[in-house]
Amino acid sequence: MPGNSFGKMFRITTFGESHGPLIGVVVDGVPAGLPISEDDINFELSFRRPGYAYTSPRREQDRAKIVSGVFNGRTTGAPIAIVVENTDVDSSYYEKMKYTPRPGHADLPYIFRYGFENWDYRGGGRASGRETVARVAAGAIAKKLLMLLDTKVAGCVEAVDGTRIKEGITFEDVLKSRCRRFRACKEEYEVTFQKILEEAIKEGDSVGALVRVVVDGVPRGLGEPVFDKLKADLAKAVMSIPAVIGFELGIGFEAAYKRGSEVSDELIVVNGDIRWRNNFYGGIVGGISTGEQIVFRCVFKPTSSIRKPIKTVDIRTLEEKTIVVEGRHDPCIGIRGVAVVEAMTAITLVDHAIRSGLIPSTRLSQKDVDVVEDRWKRYREICQHGEGYQ
Amino acid sequence: MPGNSFGKMFRITTFGESHGPLIGVVVDGVPAGLPISEDDINFELSFRRPGYAYTSPRREQDRAKIVSGVFNGRTTGAPIAIVVENTDVDSSYYEKMKYTPRPGHADLPYIFRYGFENWDYRGGGRASGRETVARVAAGAIAKKLLMLLDTKVAGCVEAVDGTRIKEGITFEDVLKSRCRRFRACKEEYEVTFQKILEEAIKEGDSVGALVRVVVDGVPRGLGEPVFDKLKADLAKAVMSIPAVIGFELGIGFEAAYKRGSEVSDELIVVNGDIRWRNNFYGGIVGGISTGEQIVFRCVFKPTSSIRKPIKTVDIRTLEEKTIVVEGRHDPCIGIRGVAVVEAMTAITLVDHAIRSGLIPSTRLSQKDVDVVEDRWKRYREICQHGEGYQ
Amino acid sequence: MPGNSFGKMFRITTFGESHGPLIGVVVDGVPAGLPISEDDINFELSFRRPGYAYTSPRREQDRAKIVSGVFNGRTTGAPIAIVVENTDVDSSYYEKMKYTPRPGHADLPYIFRYGFENWDYRGGGRASGRETVARVAAGAIAKKLLMLLDTKVAGCVEAVDGTRIKEGITFEDVLKSRCRRFRACKEEYEVTFQKILEEAIKEGDSVGALVRVVVDGVPRGLGEPVFDKLKADLAKAVMSIPAVIGFELGIGFEAAYKRGSEVSDELIVVNGDIRWRNNFYGGIVGGISTGEQIVFRCVFKPTSSIRKPIKTVDIRTLEEKTIVVEGRHDPCIGIRGVAVVEAMTAITLVDHAIRSGLIPSTRLSQKDVDVVEDRWKRYREICQHGEGYQ
Amino acid sequence: MPGNSFGKMFRITTFGESHGPLIGVVVDGVPAGLPISEDDINFELSFRRPGYAYTSPRREQDRAKIVSGVFNGRTTGAPIAIVVENTDVDSSYYEKMKYTPRPGHADLPYIFRYGFENWDYRGGGRASGRETVARVAAGAIAKKLLMLLDTKVAGCVEAVDGTRIKEGITFEDVLKSRCRRFRACKEEYEVTFQKILEEAIKEGDSVGALVRVVVDGVPRGLGEPVFDKLKADLAKAVMSIPAVIGFELGIGFEAAYKRGSEVSDELIVVNGDIRWRNNFYGGIVGGISTGEQIVFRCVFKPTSSIRKPIKTVDIRTLEEKTIVVEGRHDPCIGIRGVAVVEAMTAITLVDHAIRSGLIPSTRLSQKDVDVVEDRWKRYREICQHGEGYQ
Repeated sequence: MPGNSFGKMFRITTFGESHGPLIGVVVDGVPAGLPISEDDINFELSFRRPGYAYTSPRREQDRAKIVSGVFNGRTTGAPIAIVVENTDVDSSYYEKMKYTPRPGHADLPYIFRYGFENWDYRGGGRASGRETVARVAAGAIAKKLLMLLDTKVAGCVEAVDGTRIKEGITFEDVLKSRCRRFRACKEEYEVTFQKILEEAIKEGDSVGALVRVVVDGVPRGLGEPVFDKLKADLAKAVMSIPAVIGFELGIGFEAAYKRGSEVSDELIVVNGDIRWRNNFYGGIVGGISTGEQIVFRCVFKPTSSIRKPIKTVDIRTLEEKTIVVEGRHDPCIGIRGVAVVEAMTAITLVDHAIRSGLIPSTRLSQKDVDVVEDRWKRYREICQHGEGYQ
Repeated sequence: MPGNSFGKMFRITTFGESHGPLIGVVVDGVPAGLPISEDDINFELSFRRPGYAYTSPRREQDRAKIVSGVFNGRTTGAPIAIVVENTDVDSSYYEKMKYTPRPGHADLPYIFRYGFENWDYRGGGRASGRETVARVAAGAIAKKLLMLLDTKVAGCVEAVDGTRIKEGITFEDVLKSRCRRFRACKEEYEVTFQKILEEAIKEGDSVGALVRVVVDGVPRGLGEPVFDKLKADLAKAVMSIPAVIGFELGIGFEAAYKRGSEVSDELIVVNGDIRWRNNFYGGIVGGISTGEQIVFRCVFKPTSSIRKPIKTVDIRTLEEKTIVVEGRHDPCIGIRGVAVVEAMTAITLVDHAIRSGLIPSTRLSQKDVDVVEDRWKRYREICQHGEGYQ
Repeated sequence: MPGNSFGKMFRITTFGESHGPLIGVVVDGVPAGLPISEDDINFELSFRRPGYAYTSPRREQDRAKIVSGVFNGRTTGAPIAIVVENTDVDSSYYEKMKYTPRPGHADLPYIFRYGFENWDYRGGGRASGRETVARVAAGAIAKKLLMLLDTKVAGCVEAVDGTRIKEGITFEDVLKSRCRRFRACKEEYEVTFQKILEEAIKEGDSVGALVRVVVDGVPRGLGEPVFDKLKADLAKAVMSIPAVIGFELGIGFEAAYKRGSEVSDELIVVNGDIRWRNNFYGGIVGGISTGEQIVFRCVFKPTSSIRKPIKTVDIRTLEEKTIVVEGRHDPCIGIRGVAVVEAMTAITLVDHAIRSGLIPSTRLSQKDVDVVEDRWKRYREICQHGEGYQ
Repeated sequence: MPGNSFGKMFRITTFGESHGPLIGVVVDGVPAGLPISEDDINFELSFRRPGYAYTSPRREQDRAKIVSGVFNGRTTGAPIAIVVENTDVDSSYYEKMKYTPRPGHADLPYIFRYGFENWDYRGGGRASGRETVARVAAGAIAKKLLMLLDTKVAGCVEAVDGTRIKEGITFEDVLKSRCRRFRACKEEYEVTFQKILEEAIKEGDSVGALVRVVVDGVPRGLGEPVFDKLKADLAKAVMSIPAVIGFELGIGFEAAYKRGSEVSDELIVVNGDIRWRNNFYGGIVGGISTGEQIVFRCVFKPTSSIRKPIKTVDIRTLEEKTIVVEGRHDPCIGIRGVAVVEAMTAITLVDHAIRSGLIPSTRLSQKDVDVVEDRWKRYREICQHGEGYQ
């Protein structure tokens, strides 16, 4: 199957380009009966929205429109299509620069693959971060469905530039980062992160980010041997996000420098239930969820578009050129990226929950619906909108 | 689709358990005309084989038998099935221990998912590293097919325990690690690695490993936006391997601590061709191969089975118990794991090459065959067998 | 994967309901470089459009809007999304009738599957024939791509009510049926078909239809053993169309009453090429195309909505009720259905052509484009629009 | 995905050729806990076995060997691999005839697709009816799983040559045909069918067959709009069987000659349940099962191998040649084909039952197991083995 779909039983297909009329997503495999509104989608979109000096100056309202699959406020079992219009589009800069591909962007690889004459050079086209609007929209449905299992996904920024949060980070810390502008895993780091970003902006530079995701209330037994291990599907989900170049589960790369005796977990009994004492491996053992919190990290590279001159090549003449990327750009895409990572995580988990029969594939009962509504309401109260929202 | 298959156009389906009669794989989507022999498969299997004090004491001959899809030494376009018998199996230990799941293994997650009464407790069953024999067998076909594009995959061990190879590692270094017992990326580290392993064995402990993979001769344009990005599919492929808990492309997690200006690549002209100067992002930009070498790292956790006492729980009584894992085990699974990572990488690349039309999906021409045979012959001469082979 | 997608390498995903704001389709897997316009889509839609007394009174303009995947008139390799607005919608009748499901429609099965409370009862919702607009839109792209191979798909009506066209039907006959209002396979039957339909309308009744499809210029070797045989995929494609309840290839069901000696084909040499003399099996042998014309038939049941009283049951009370379906409906859906069968056939063939490497999966060369444009122009000249078009 | 797999959640992958060492199948997606034995598989294989003058003289024992996925007599959730050895193989005839392809077989299409030099000409290779052993083996698992829903699949022969059974055929008739050598839908036709076959054999000719399948105890709500309609997936399943060239649901092709008023069904109340009075559309409306019996027909063409001279072409010289197919062949493949159609039907239904959550995807409860065992025992008592079995 071509590459614009993700998931097996809960399956999203995205479409739309950065400078096309809209970004859209079809979500197929949603059971009937789920109450879902455009406001639910917009709520999640608010955590991805720009709207502040530190982020991209493109001013999109990002208002979701549900155009199929929902009737009388509930899903019908039909595919749900959601579109978000692109309203603030100016392609003139890209028109001018189309013969000098930006080295850190997908420009040249797209030209290699699809041919220069077919390349949508406007704002990165399909490779733009704007495509992730569709993922966050679909993620809102996934997150709401996960309420049935009381599963909550949250992400935060653990490090930017040289600064890394070293203190123990709890799920509550992570969840509350949704109320913070810079998504720091600990509130006290917000100021530091702000300073780092302000400095980067001033210098026309950008910074990378380490993002941590924690999932609380994970049902046991999710993940399918041997290729669709939960860790494998999460890795794919997250690595498919633009600018993400690393993924690690639990102690991750640290394990390369450890002895087995240092990082061997133990089984213990807590309240009559078997549990892992240390959760070294991020809630997934043998590719299957253990019921402990899922914990992983991913890394966003520094935004490629910086205000410093970059060397490139004119593809007509093969002359080396120096270009300067105009406009202002997110100095740290990892911050808005958190919302996208959360969405992809939720989508992956719902997919596996349906595959395993933990969420029904055809329809929710009224009791299911009541549970979902109640938990969702409380979830939305934690942070009523993303800080990019105005 | 259930989880025991991988790939879209070049698709492998594995079967068999650690203590069942055999391990097998069906490879569907191989074009007709590829010369392939059991010896070709055994060649690759030799790089995964135990056969030395430092690795698992289970003595498997690992002789592949091709039971379908090949006629007169060439593939016919039919699915290729390969089986490898399990000959050295003793389940008595596992029988005895079945009520006290090993914390670092898939025991308890499998029980959660499939039920204790259905659990194949013998040697980890399907979750055993033994399943990866099937992957390496399929990988041999993938590697041979990649010869058509002159694409070569090789991996090596970059770090074990506290020791990391810091010097620049070339593709030739990596390729030659196939001739080394400990797969060190640089020959001079073999002795150090050996010492670390010997010490670990002496102490009944185990160590993690950092594995580096380099792919040389990568065609441009591989990878499918937006979910089947090459980096995403590689991440899934590698993270589906038992014990792998992290994946990073190019500079990977380092990027979290970098400024954009430090890690912005440049386009330059080399011999009339546009190239990336630094290849910071491991040969994949925008999810599509750039033609530069693909470079990624993954981490294997230390072997879970160590000779030190581990705490667990008796699932019948919920009493906490201390067990000692008997027998001898690989002190560092990452070493034999390199062959598995290579295989999964080759399988992913072939899949994308077929999807992109760079390798024909139905049949090779005689000219193709000649090219493949010639390059394969030279590839096999580099290291005629893995060092585990006797 | 959920059921709203079709195809492996050329993959369509449809969305939208009969009385929702729009019907849409995402077509993923279209190579870059294909010139495609909204006019091309509208052209094909005209062959499915109502617009005449004999067909449904719903007056839809059916104007396609391409909202992604096309830039400067050519495909970019990105997924193509097409939407067609629903403008002439009146749900009041359905609102009134929602407790008395129509026996021949999907009403009750949808209620069984998704729950009454989630059922979109307006005009059949997702089960409406209106969904097929999306298929015909996608089919336009498929048909145009097939021009690369000089493959042309055409269908016609071979029988309605008691009248069956018995004379030899050539591909040209079938192709020209596109210029006929009743799509009769032979022009001289148009009048008879018209009379049958007029009579059915007068009596408030409906009639079934036998549809024949012929594909000319089929490349050899399409179809994948053993499950994705071309005959199997065509059968699925066609049987997925609402109201189609039978599919037969070549001599089809007649074969049940034949001796092998009567229907054994022969190989002969024609112009230096091996050919099948009789093409008894409709251009597919062993599940693979032979290069002869593909010939199959399918049957549309008579429209379920007739003006005669039907017995049903009130689902609240389980009382048996008699209802009369209001409004006017297509007396023979098979006629407009021909365009849908053509579309699904083209989609299936393109999918297989890409899978087999006969149509490139990533991009067309300029030479390819020129060939396509030229042939498409000539194809459009045969019948400049469907007769439903005004 | 390549073509040797079928199903989405219950997925079979077959391998092996007519004259290779074995035929095999991997069944992935079987929930853990299902009791399954080689004897269960052999039971179903007995209904497909030759073993009588009227069928192919190849004498295969067809003993299934389960090589993975079953432990202590129950499925473990791992993929189940089953192999059946080919023991009675003689390729000499095919060796001799390889340059003169048989017109009605897949010989030439395979050569077109895969190249003559890669063609496995021995006994049809992968295109042989022998491949269907794998389907019947997998079908045994599917049939047993369906017991959970009390769903029973049975097929029979409704017509051979000119003789068609016109009397009302009940599910019991069909089920009992399993005890009959010629699988006549009514016992009294066995003699007639025998005569027809004996005559065909005497004349070195073959006959086609019309096969009817009835499924009793179908759960409501199976089938996924809009492409994976149950009728579409059944059509694909059945049309993928060698020699099947037509499929019709319920009244099928007859509908082309009917008025809506003649074939409009009615809803009625029977024992407090809404039912369709006539089940004209074979238990599927809107692509979704209605709970009525599923009824469809398919047609097997007459065996292509007959003892009469056939014209073909020498592919080396393009000279027209006359060949005589040696040996004895099934004069009517439709008879043994019934077992294959049953298997593909059961596989399709189980797949949809798992997708819809009616059969658990991960594991059966002990109560489920007891139900399955009890019903299966009774099912096996109806006809203890196929009549081909000796």
